[in-house]
Amino acid sequence: MRGAVIHAPGDVRFEERADPTIEQPTDAVIRMVATCVCGSDLWSYRGDNRIDHPQPIGHEYVGVVEEVGADVRTIRPGQTVVGSFFASDNTCAHCRAGYQTACLHRVGMGGLGAQAERLRVPLADGTLVAASGTPDADLVPSLLAASDVLGTGWFAATAAEVGPGKTVAVVGDGAVGLLGVLAARELGAERVIAMSRHASRQALAREFGATDIVTTRGDEGVAEVKDLTDGLGADSVIEAVGTQQSVMQAIAATRAGGHVGMVGVAHGVAIPGDRLFYSFVHLHGGPAPVRRFLPELIGLIEQRAIDPGRVFDLTLPLSEVAEGYRAMDERRAIKTLLVP
Amino acid sequence: MRGAVIHAPGDVRFEERADPTIEQPTDAVIRMVATCVCGSDLWSYRGDNRIDHPQPIGHEYVGVVEEVGADVRTIRPGQTVVGSFFASDNTCAHCRAGYQTACLHRVGMGGLGAQAERLRVPLADGTLVAASGTPDADLVPSLLAASDVLGTGWFAATAAEVGPGKTVAVVGDGAVGLLGVLAARELGAERVIAMSRHASRQALAREFGATDIVTTRGDEGVAEVKDLTDGLGADSVIEAVGTQQSVMQAIAATRAGGHVGMVGVAHGVAIPGDRLFYSFVHLHGGPAPVRRFLPELIGLIEQRAIDPGRVFDLTLPLSEVAEGYRAMDERRAIKTLLVP
Repeated sequence: MRGAVIHAPGDVRFEERADPTIEQPTDAVIRMVATCVCGSDLWSYRGDNRIDHPQPIGHEYVGVVEEVGADVRTIRPGQTVVGSFFASDNTCAHCRAGYQTACLHRVGMGGLGAQAERLRVPLADGTLVAASGTPDADLVPSLLAASDVLGTGWFAATAAEVGPGKTVAVVGDGAVGLLGVLAARELGAERVIAMSRHASRQALAREFGATDIVTTRGDEGVAEVKDLTDGLGADSVIEAVGTQQSVMQAIAATRAGGHVGMVGVAHGVAIPGDRLFYSFVHLHGGPAPVRRFLPELIGLIEQRAIDPGRVFDLTLPLSEVAEGYRAMDERRAIKTLLVP
Repeated sequence: MRGAVIHAPGDVRFEERADPTIEQPTDAVIRMVATCVCGSDLWSYRGDNRIDHPQPIGHEYVGVVEEVGADVRTIRPGQTVVGSFFASDNTCAHCRAGYQTACLHRVGMGGLGAQAERLRVPLADGTLVAASGTPDADLVPSLLAASDVLGTGWFAATAAEVGPGKTVAVVGDGAVGLLGVLAARELGAERVIAMSRHASRQALAREFGATDIVTTRGDEGVAEVKDLTDGLGADSVIEAVGTQQSVMQAIAATRAGGHVGMVGVAHGVAIPGDRLFYSFVHLHGGPAPVRRFLPELIGLIEQRAIDPGRVFDLTLPLSEVAEGYRAMDERRAIKTLLVP
């Protein structure tokens, strides 16, 4: 089969790769319906993660099950399934507590390379969630969003304790931040302040339910959020960037006793203990346990209650995966969907 | 009147100070029944906080109201009262949310100097909580503990989401850590692991309800906590020290999805974003909003359900305040109670 292989920063190729097979009795092999490029794939693409040798890449996937191992009980060939960026058994203590990304037997899907025609999925019963029948084609982008960015935005909103009547601020206008806006509204937020300096992303944030837009950042952005919240700060803040500035901005924009949901993968961040201490905020986050939310999110998508697939503003054949990376790297696209 | 004045590191004197008077119509003046030395007073005593000129010191107090300002409505002369280290109006948005130490009109009590015969308490109606009648003399140490260390340990346990059936680890065996143990048991914890290297403090931790003692710290201490918790980490961890090592130890000893209650005042702490991110813990803390808990804690003390006053292992006349500091600085005492 063919799939994406990253050879070096800036060098993603679509090439022949070994066909995935059932290696463990708990594996499934899926035929890809749609996959995509993640903001986090750009770390390797931009040289922030080391690449020692050519490696498969991609960790977001909607597929049809082709084959399952002997120990797979609930997932069956023919089902359309969605999974997340970590395979997880969904039975260990961490999974049962809702932290499937901390699964004691987790397997990172990036190394298996989901930007491909087919994919081996370990721990299939724990990892995969089946759609009801074969989804309508127009639902596929939203199901694919559920695989990572929607689930991550949803976790961020949950970690930030978003709920009815609350005011939420969202730091970051990438796919995760935008879907954090959507999640906040779905979870009942009264007011959602999107922090964005890009007109097209502001427009999508508004479509997803943002009630206010703040175009400044840093101290100035914090001051604007405070102006919008009686000088107190937002009840809940979603941090979807992962830089020092964005994390400190999120903490400072939160009211005393409020909650910060951190899902931007922290790069070079050091949180000063005294700043955190005197902020009185709650901090929670990490690699989102998307699996926790998949059944609910797939249900909402099938009912057409939400349309998270709108974050994909570029669709390409999988064979043009290299252009998909370039478009995101150059910020021509928010997120690239790839169809085999 | 006479009271403590700190002149320089290591130099606390008992000397004549101006009599406190009603300066604002919301003030009360109390006659001190008991006061004490706080671990945080030692920062100034040890030279970690700058001292530009001689200044009154002390922020823990149980007293009898002598006089109230014209706008004081609920606090009355003759009442025995307890307050916390920040005066707060208890009506602003932060107070209503339970964060009285973030009160929009807060006044630090340390600057007013509670280690004295009398004390002015601003925002008396918001700050002070009256005992029922005149408490028995043997309850005074416990009421004084409620003023800071008990309230702080209680907040830590609350911030760490301690509850029935949970396993709690406590980092720090000072008065706050020990009362964190007490709070954890009162809040229903099934298992409380006290981390302490001092026999006398271990003994008090056990009397307060600790079920396990871990005598190591750092990575070794974390490994021991994990050994005691099926390799997962504790559900709730109380951080009552405030150093880089203790904060990182608390985070690492917490299970994925667990909660860290941070009440050790952070000194020189920088939390690496990636370590926090991949720990999956919840972090919450700050200067404890003791006022939130005072009515409940005073009630428990009056019912003799708890005996937090046992953290005082040295009682001196107020005139010997200097020796009270020395004994704590040299670790001869956990906490010094001072009687005018």
